[in-house]
Amino acid sequence: MMHRLPRIGILGGMGPLATADFLAKLTHATAATRDQDHFPVTVESAPQIPDRVAALEGRGEDPLPALLAVAQRLGRAGCDLIAMPCNTAHLWHDALCAGTPLPVLHIADAVAGHLGGACRVGLMGTSATLRSGLYQRRIGNAHEWLLPTDDDMTRYVMPGVAAVKRNQMAEAAELLRLAAISLARRGIDVLVLGCTEIPLALRPGDASVPMIDATDALARATIAAATCLRDRNHGRAG
Amino acid sequence: MMHRLPRIGILGGMGPLATADFLAKLTHATAATRDQDHFPVTVESAPQIPDRVAALEGRGEDPLPALLAVAQRLGRAGCDLIAMPCNTAHLWHDALCAGTPLPVLHIADAVAGHLGGACRVGLMGTSATLRSGLYQRRIGNAHEWLLPTDDDMTRYVMPGVAAVKRNQMAEAAELLRLAAISLARRGIDVLVLGCTEIPLALRPGDASVPMIDATDALARATIAAATCLRDRNHGRAG
Repeated sequence: MMHRLPRIGILGGMGPLATADFLAKLTHATAATRDQDHFPVTVESAPQIPDRVAALEGRGEDPLPALLAVAQRLGRAGCDLIAMPCNTAHLWHDALCAGTPLPVLHIADAVAGHLGGACRVGLMGTSATLRSGLYQRRIGNAHEWLLPTDDDMTRYVMPGVAAVKRNQMAEAAELLRLAAISLARRGIDVLVLGCTEIPLALRPGDASVPMIDATDALARATIAAATCLRDRNHGRAG
Repeated sequence: MMHRLPRIGILGGMGPLATADFLAKLTHATAATRDQDHFPVTVESAPQIPDRVAALEGRGEDPLPALLAVAQRLGRAGCDLIAMPCNTAHLWHDALCAGTPLPVLHIADAVAGHLGGACRVGLMGTSATLRSGLYQRRIGNAHEWLLPTDDDMTRYVMPGVAAVKRNQMAEAAELLRLAAISLARRGIDVLVLGCTEIPLALRPGDASVPMIDATDALARATIAAATCLRDRNHGRAG
């Protein structure tokens, strides 16, 4: 008997290139030898969702109504779970979960699974992600969190993220590399790339420290969750 | 007054990595300085669509019912036009157009716009795409079409495409490079990469001949079509 495969919903467009990167990482995370081995996926790339950082800083529209509307579209499309390849948007994760019957994976949970015994964890992300303590509160005090200095945020990280959104990858790579090197010099065991724009420009080896790509971690967690749902549908242990 | 932006529908999953590549190329093809400048996109990655090459060779299920079902999903999602990042699937383009009210772009039309004055055009693609004359019939006799030999198809092209679908990119790159070099030696002005798996492994410069990436051509044509619809919605000349 043919069972329906779970359908993965991607609440994307924040930014659109990060969504394409997530879809590629989702494909690479799947054990497959042919097209038909992959899960069905519906992507809603909704770049008109209001800017998350601007909203957090009180100078822009609340993105929650748009996030909920896209989640509802994914529900109507028959999705069984939702992944959202944007770190900052996870500041609305609780509100999103309250507003949709579908499970919404959390990107910090996905990253937590890769931290292992790391003590000093460097974290790069948007000012909103860092200041809100999105990762630190969710993952907790087992790790010491090191963030870029205010100066490095202003000079390197935020302009680097903006350069990715303008498709200026060489400029973005240089800015983000300087921020990563600066954090690495302070002595960290691992560097979390906690903004989906960052791994589009920064590559492993650009700083002398292991990196965890949050986008890739979320992709792996999404495939693991979909596999679990599939196996449950088949009546085997999840 | 705020006008609704046209929504791009992607009939994807053939294969899933090619769909992610198309989404990235769509983003790069857009003139944008921030997320909100991009078009909304709905991607249906439907990897369970039956194998196109197998169907054409009479050893597999007809993919048309699945293609039509995905097109209908894109219609229900409010899409205004459909792009299909799979060359071989365009053998069902007429039937797809007959079965959906939405315009479906044609990948060969998108490539035609980049051929310029090229006389001798090399074409790499699946055996089904090449034998059916998908490009040659659609674009016509203004160009002389050169295809890989039967031996090169069996040894290099088809195993190269299959290797991409298994995520074995180094093996795929080597196989597809040998096929491209072999075609280039026969004297061609340009090489069309007419299978969406091929540009995932083969890079410009891998053969000493200019290449046209059909996936990228379709992405540019899709953004041009969406821009035209947007301008028409705004009441300006399309």
